[in-house]
Amino acid sequence: MRKEICLSGSGGQGLILAGIILAEAAGIHDGFEVVQTQSYGPEARGGASRSEVVISDEKIDYPKIIKSDILLALTQKACYKYIENLKEDGILLVDSTDVTKIPPFKGRVYQHPITEDAIKVLGNQLVANIISLGILVQISEIVSKEALKQALQTRIPERIRDLNKKALEYGFQIGENLINIT
Amino acid sequence: MRKEICLSGSGGQGLILAGIILAEAAGIHDGFEVVQTQSYGPEARGGASRSEVVISDEKIDYPKIIKSDILLALTQKACYKYIENLKEDGILLVDSTDVTKIPPFKGRVYQHPITEDAIKVLGNQLVANIISLGILVQISEIVSKEALKQALQTRIPERIRDLNKKALEYGFQIGENLINIT
Repeated sequence: MRKEICLSGSGGQGLILAGIILAEAAGIHDGFEVVQTQSYGPEARGGASRSEVVISDEKIDYPKIIKSDILLALTQKACYKYIENLKEDGILLVDSTDVTKIPPFKGRVYQHPITEDAIKVLGNQLVANIISLGILVQISEIVSKEALKQALQTRIPERIRDLNKKALEYGFQIGENLINIT
Repeated sequence: MRKEICLSGSGGQGLILAGIILAEAAGIHDGFEVVQTQSYGPEARGGASRSEVVISDEKIDYPKIIKSDILLALTQKACYKYIENLKEDGILLVDSTDVTKIPPFKGRVYQHPITEDAIKVLGNQLVANIISLGILVQISEIVSKEALKQALQTRIPERIRDLNKKALEYGFQIGENLINIT
């Protein structure tokens, strides 16, 4: 079992932190082998941002994504760019606040206005990353919800922990009711 | 030119953040290709922590460390573990607060009571990671100091930014006066 997750959007959307929390949930709390990566090159300087998580029950030889099993796209640009590398039967979750055009794709597709909800429901657009994680884990079961909660508890400073816990629970709820639109 | 940097210690010492700041300095501000990685497995669950940064002027094929050029070790355990993978002519920087025994090594070796200074001079042991970065960049010139300052500015929340800026400048100062002890 090797699973590859790509969290994509633009700089400042907290995707590295989301990748670290997902990786620690799988690696420290759920007991898998995990490698978490960010790459910087010309595209990073153009504002595109992605964070990669590879989870396996065996030692990981190649630590970067070959073909994603799961893609989160918070921006239209990221969606266009990274869907090319998503497996045919993969899972795509898009933030419909920005992603209004979903390229043709045969796998499972979920959409929700994540950033809009972060602002309207949680009062802070910076938690769109954590809502996304909640949705992603609810629909994919890639790690246990318990592990994700524990990783969040460790990684988020106390001052903003309650807000982020609420964002995570909100994400679980949204995920429970989301329907594959393909 | 391919340079591999290993930042090691125990969980909670802020080594992932240090890796991200170093990676963003090189990748976003200095214009290199960079991959930044953390791995989780049995050793992470035992409390050892390391963050890897690979910097190159060409596209990076293999994104993880093969043989480190630079090793930061904040704990004795990490020093023993990761020195085995340090190049013979590499650079070792240890925090002598915890690392009291330096294994035989022919490259350049620097030591300083980093955590002790973080507490005594800066009043907060959590900035040992940033002091370390300052020392490391001063002695190795692996990225420009300007790029490192810019990356820190972006990555550190405003509330604790001044403290971290001071820690970085303090690290530069310490690095300027450190002598290779081999």
